[in-house]
Amino acid sequence: MMRIAILIFDGLTALDAIGPYEILSRLPETELRFVGREAGPKRTDTGALGIHADLALAELPDPEVLVVPGGEGNRSLMTDDEVLGWVRDVHDRSTWTTSVCTGALILGAAGILDGKRATTHWAYLDRLRELGAETASERVVEHGKVVTAAGVSAGIDMALTLASRIAGERVAQSIQLGIEYDPEPPFDTGSPHKAPQELVDLIRSSERTE
Amino acid sequence: MMRIAILIFDGLTALDAIGPYEILSRLPETELRFVGREAGPKRTDTGALGIHADLALAELPDPEVLVVPGGEGNRSLMTDDEVLGWVRDVHDRSTWTTSVCTGALILGAAGILDGKRATTHWAYLDRLRELGAETASERVVEHGKVVTAAGVSAGIDMALTLASRIAGERVAQSIQLGIEYDPEPPFDTGSPHKAPQELVDLIRSSERTE
Repeated sequence: MMRIAILIFDGLTALDAIGPYEILSRLPETELRFVGREAGPKRTDTGALGIHADLALAELPDPEVLVVPGGEGNRSLMTDDEVLGWVRDVHDRSTWTTSVCTGALILGAAGILDGKRATTHWAYLDRLRELGAETASERVVEHGKVVTAAGVSAGIDMALTLASRIAGERVAQSIQLGIEYDPEPPFDTGSPHKAPQELVDLIRSSERTE
Repeated sequence: MMRIAILIFDGLTALDAIGPYEILSRLPETELRFVGREAGPKRTDTGALGIHADLALAELPDPEVLVVPGGEGNRSLMTDDEVLGWVRDVHDRSTWTTSVCTGALILGAAGILDGKRATTHWAYLDRLRELGAETASERVVEHGKVVTAAGVSAGIDMALTLASRIAGERVAQSIQLGIEYDPEPPFDTGSPHKAPQELVDLIRSSERTE
């Protein structure tokens, strides 16, 4: 039984975690758990949603798969020795260590991305580089057992890629069909290379002030 | 202040709700709340996630926007007079009434889709037709103020469309950039028209036995 841990915390961006959850929880012969510094309810970054950590870090010291989502709440985790220590220990023994969006900053702060190719939300690539990573503007970046995704919704693509590595392409394709993931975004503004510069500047300035 | 209600319940498919939440919660001058038949924790369909309904139905009788997600847990809601009555009353006064995946079955059971164009998860189009809808195999279907989405991940496309109707294209495009929604599915198997027939049959048979 492969155990999958998704780390959650107050100030989390919900979709960062729930995209991968929806895919990885459908894998055969796996068990997925939501883990917090302490067990109990966590409030997402908008304040409008409460999600539950069923386990504390100490209750799941050695999952085979780790998923670290992002959200402004993870900035305080970047200097939290208990969380960083747990992430490092898990990574030492993991089969896969993964992140979505600014979750990569946690992996970076834990020293896991030193010299590795990795990605994060487009507005945070500079900060990820400062943490030692060799950043890449790609949607999903694999470097050995470390798999990082770009911003928020990229966790869905990352998890499908991961699902194919864990259980084979047939299973991943079946999950993709089950969640009807045949995206038709109404606009073509989902990346800074495609969106109007005005919108890119707007978001970059608001992210910087967090 | 436009109030947005997302109805949640035990047996919910999490991404059906969290995709739209991640987008609609970023709209200016809106307030988004998670509502349950009773307030309190709800467990999703996989059993691996607990999310919190902050309000009971009676506490939010008249939101301007309603989002009804799917999941096998909603089958019991289809004969629940209290829930169906609330959905009908909300719809009578709403600006937008929406669903994701099999959430459309709830709207159908409430009599809201009678003679209307609507969609749902691809494996449930027949059942939606039995409830009076004129079904369409499209990712997002708008019929007046009723907007329905196809399976699970289609809620993201639906919510971006809805965001543009509520707050204009510029705001919707900015949200799309903020969540870096520039999808790159690793496989092209997200719809029954694209996936191998063997996978379509597999999922159809498993959904039927629910």
